[in-house]
Amino acid sequence: MSERLVVIGGDATGMSAASQARRLRKPGELEIVVFERGHFTSYSACGIPYWVGGEVEERDDLIARTPEEHRARDIDLRLRTEVLEIDIDGRRVRSRDLESGVETWTGYDKLVFATGATPIRPPLPGIDAQGVHGVQTLDDGQALIDTLESIEGRRAVVVGAGYIGVEMAEALIHRGYQVTMVNRSAEPMSTLDPDMGALVRKAMEGMDIQVVSNAEVTGIRADEAGRARAVTTSDAEYEADVVVLGIGVRPNIDLARAAGLPLGPNEGILTDLSMRVRGHENIWAGGDCVEVLDLVSGSLRHIPLGTHANKHGQIIGSGIGGDYATFPGVVGTAISKVCDLEVARTGLREQDARTAGLQYVTVIIESTSRSGYFPGTALMTVKMLAERRTGRLLGVQIVGREGAAKRIDIAAVALTTRLTVEQMTALDLGYAPPFSPVWDPILVAARKAVTAVRRNP
Amino acid sequence: MSERLVVIGGDATGMSAASQARRLRKPGELEIVVFERGHFTSYSACGIPYWVGGEVEERDDLIARTPEEHRARDIDLRLRTEVLEIDIDGRRVRSRDLESGVETWTGYDKLVFATGATPIRPPLPGIDAQGVHGVQTLDDGQALIDTLESIEGRRAVVVGAGYIGVEMAEALIHRGYQVTMVNRSAEPMSTLDPDMGALVRKAMEGMDIQVVSNAEVTGIRADEAGRARAVTTSDAEYEADVVVLGIGVRPNIDLARAAGLPLGPNEGILTDLSMRVRGHENIWAGGDCVEVLDLVSGSLRHIPLGTHANKHGQIIGSGIGGDYATFPGVVGTAISKVCDLEVARTGLREQDARTAGLQYVTVIIESTSRSGYFPGTALMTVKMLAERRTGRLLGVQIVGREGAAKRIDIAAVALTTRLTVEQMTALDLGYAPPFSPVWDPILVAARKAVTAVRRNP
Repeated sequence: MSERLVVIGGDATGMSAASQARRLRKPGELEIVVFERGHFTSYSACGIPYWVGGEVEERDDLIARTPEEHRARDIDLRLRTEVLEIDIDGRRVRSRDLESGVETWTGYDKLVFATGATPIRPPLPGIDAQGVHGVQTLDDGQALIDTLESIEGRRAVVVGAGYIGVEMAEALIHRGYQVTMVNRSAEPMSTLDPDMGALVRKAMEGMDIQVVSNAEVTGIRADEAGRARAVTTSDAEYEADVVVLGIGVRPNIDLARAAGLPLGPNEGILTDLSMRVRGHENIWAGGDCVEVLDLVSGSLRHIPLGTHANKHGQIIGSGIGGDYATFPGVVGTAISKVCDLEVARTGLREQDARTAGLQYVTVIIESTSRSGYFPGTALMTVKMLAERRTGRLLGVQIVGREGAAKRIDIAAVALTTRLTVEQMTALDLGYAPPFSPVWDPILVAARKAVTAVRRNP
Repeated sequence: MSERLVVIGGDATGMSAASQARRLRKPGELEIVVFERGHFTSYSACGIPYWVGGEVEERDDLIARTPEEHRARDIDLRLRTEVLEIDIDGRRVRSRDLESGVETWTGYDKLVFATGATPIRPPLPGIDAQGVHGVQTLDDGQALIDTLESIEGRRAVVVGAGYIGVEMAEALIHRGYQVTMVNRSAEPMSTLDPDMGALVRKAMEGMDIQVVSNAEVTGIRADEAGRARAVTTSDAEYEADVVVLGIGVRPNIDLARAAGLPLGPNEGILTDLSMRVRGHENIWAGGDCVEVLDLVSGSLRHIPLGTHANKHGQIIGSGIGGDYATFPGVVGTAISKVCDLEVARTGLREQDARTAGLQYVTVIIESTSRSGYFPGTALMTVKMLAERRTGRLLGVQIVGREGAAKRIDIAAVALTTRLTVEQMTALDLGYAPPFSPVWDPILVAARKAVTAVRRNP
């Protein structure tokens, strides 16, 4: 007897879950219906800044699998169809075809929430002016590109200085804009400690990006035609021909909340380790709409990243298909680039460690990406946090050039396996002059951290 | 009362040990004497191919710390002084000043063996002809450069296709030579499985390096002036204006053997985990002259690499200075490059796993260094070995371009912490389109390995 799986959301988590379920269950065993309110499926939202910046030429390059490809694998994909309501007891969802306006109820045996996240759009005066853009979906990216191609001015203001903000700053520089980044915090990249964020700021200033810190945006000034002309803060006004919002996202949980699903401290859906919604045998959730366990601090977090979303989809699809897989949690790894600057972090910042009740030592070292004598070697600053007494690694942040970003993976695996900094000093890491000094920067930091742990008994 | 430390060998292990001991013990507490038979100390032997190739301009760039710098820190460094004999019972060493010929006995309280390794130089006809060069020491490198600058021909033959061999092939290409690599094995890089070595061979052939496999060198043909003119094998003759030997090295253990120190199955000195020579309270050994524990197979190996040598020196110096540190062992990580080809390995090859009595599955995947749509993305082939039933990671080999080499570190930490391939699929690795596909190639391989383990119960 055939069951029906309904998936809400057709990007990374939703389509990975659908595809993996299809791999394990034939169409005669499992019918799969996916509702997606946008025009696209399975695209790389993380790639949007590079498409806007012109490094990626075509929008379709960002699409990993087209609707037609999914349909060819017996996935009933309904684009431009929004789910409006979920009837948990009746095991059915109400959806609306956004073109025709027709509403339909669809029954399900199994349900997947993959509703993603929405860019935060503060209710400021002028926020809806023409030329003010978020960049979460392909549709958003296309709208921004349309604006960039139609305006004459070359002044761009990016509001927010997180990953999206700095990546959009790079994109706009590539397009020849004069970029101002307006940021509420003391330093950009608040996923880093401020001392490391300061290195990012200095590097960005060196790229002629104007970085405005400690600035609360109070509104967008528009001209008579309704077009954005400036971003205003309590202290100043920054002229703008285009404004990009990179303030962050929040989980899309209106449907889940209305259906009474459990939500966590960060307003994401709560799941068990197999990505099943807590308390619901036949409902799964994953990706940007859920909370994940931070393995280092033991707390729940909302981390909207494609890498987790894809893993969640795989795990959900496996579970639905009758296989077994779990998502143990994250350590908080994230990497980014701004022109040739590479920024990486994993684990806890100082404030995260304090919040978690952990006492810690910190060290900062400067080293190089290659042997010091090797041409092209670049400076790299590594900050490391270790727990007081036990010496357990708690976090690493790296700001540098070539070779800085992916070096964080060493720390990510060490955090996952709960290594101490002393254990890390013995790691057998790859060494050759074009790729690393004989003591890898991570090892240099670990050695210094060992000393710091001993000095704080 | 002051003690005397005598160190035999002034490169990575010896000088690291001396420096670390000096950090912990003042000159009034510990006198430190280092004997070094060459002209240089603390240099990067690993950098020699890049100096020969012209990427590193000056020989002195490879010297991390000069004799004068060491002496300024109260280390009594005796260059061009060879230790000839060790009197273990009398706690003294006999040395000869290679300039004056004067021999001296020097007493010690503590002794460090850091005698390194010597390139293998098979006793073939013509092996001592002019223009035949090994590349182990700075003196060797200078001799090779002198030859390259004095000869007119542009044909180079490299004998051996290990790390030194392939790096020297690159160096000679940079210098404009036509390079032939003659190799005893079926494929170059016998530290890889042959299927991965084949990828290296194809890439090298694409760089117009002639790779001759399954070829046993029978001699060097010299002209009447005693200058090398060709390398001969049982089947053929390869004309050469210069010949570089990259056949490998063996531990320098003549002194240790004569003194009755314990040697292992690979003819290296045997130590305990604190790098103390087994059975000798006051003698330490480290670097290219010792054997190390392979944490994956549980067996002893001889792995002459600067990264281990430096760690050994630190640990020895700490122990001598009264601190505590150990070297738990290696997992066999090594990386290398030939022009833009990057080659990496860690853990066990198939033959190593068989020798260790392990049953295993293997998978090979092809992925990319960046998101597939990102400009500059490059193909990367990853081979992974996992233990049958337990799924424990046993080894990884990577052949690719940009981003291939240091990705091996993920596997190196996973091997150290004995992760299963299933555990690896959940690793929170850095992801951003310029640096990785959303599923890192290591994760793609791990996922495929999980399936392979299940299929071989």
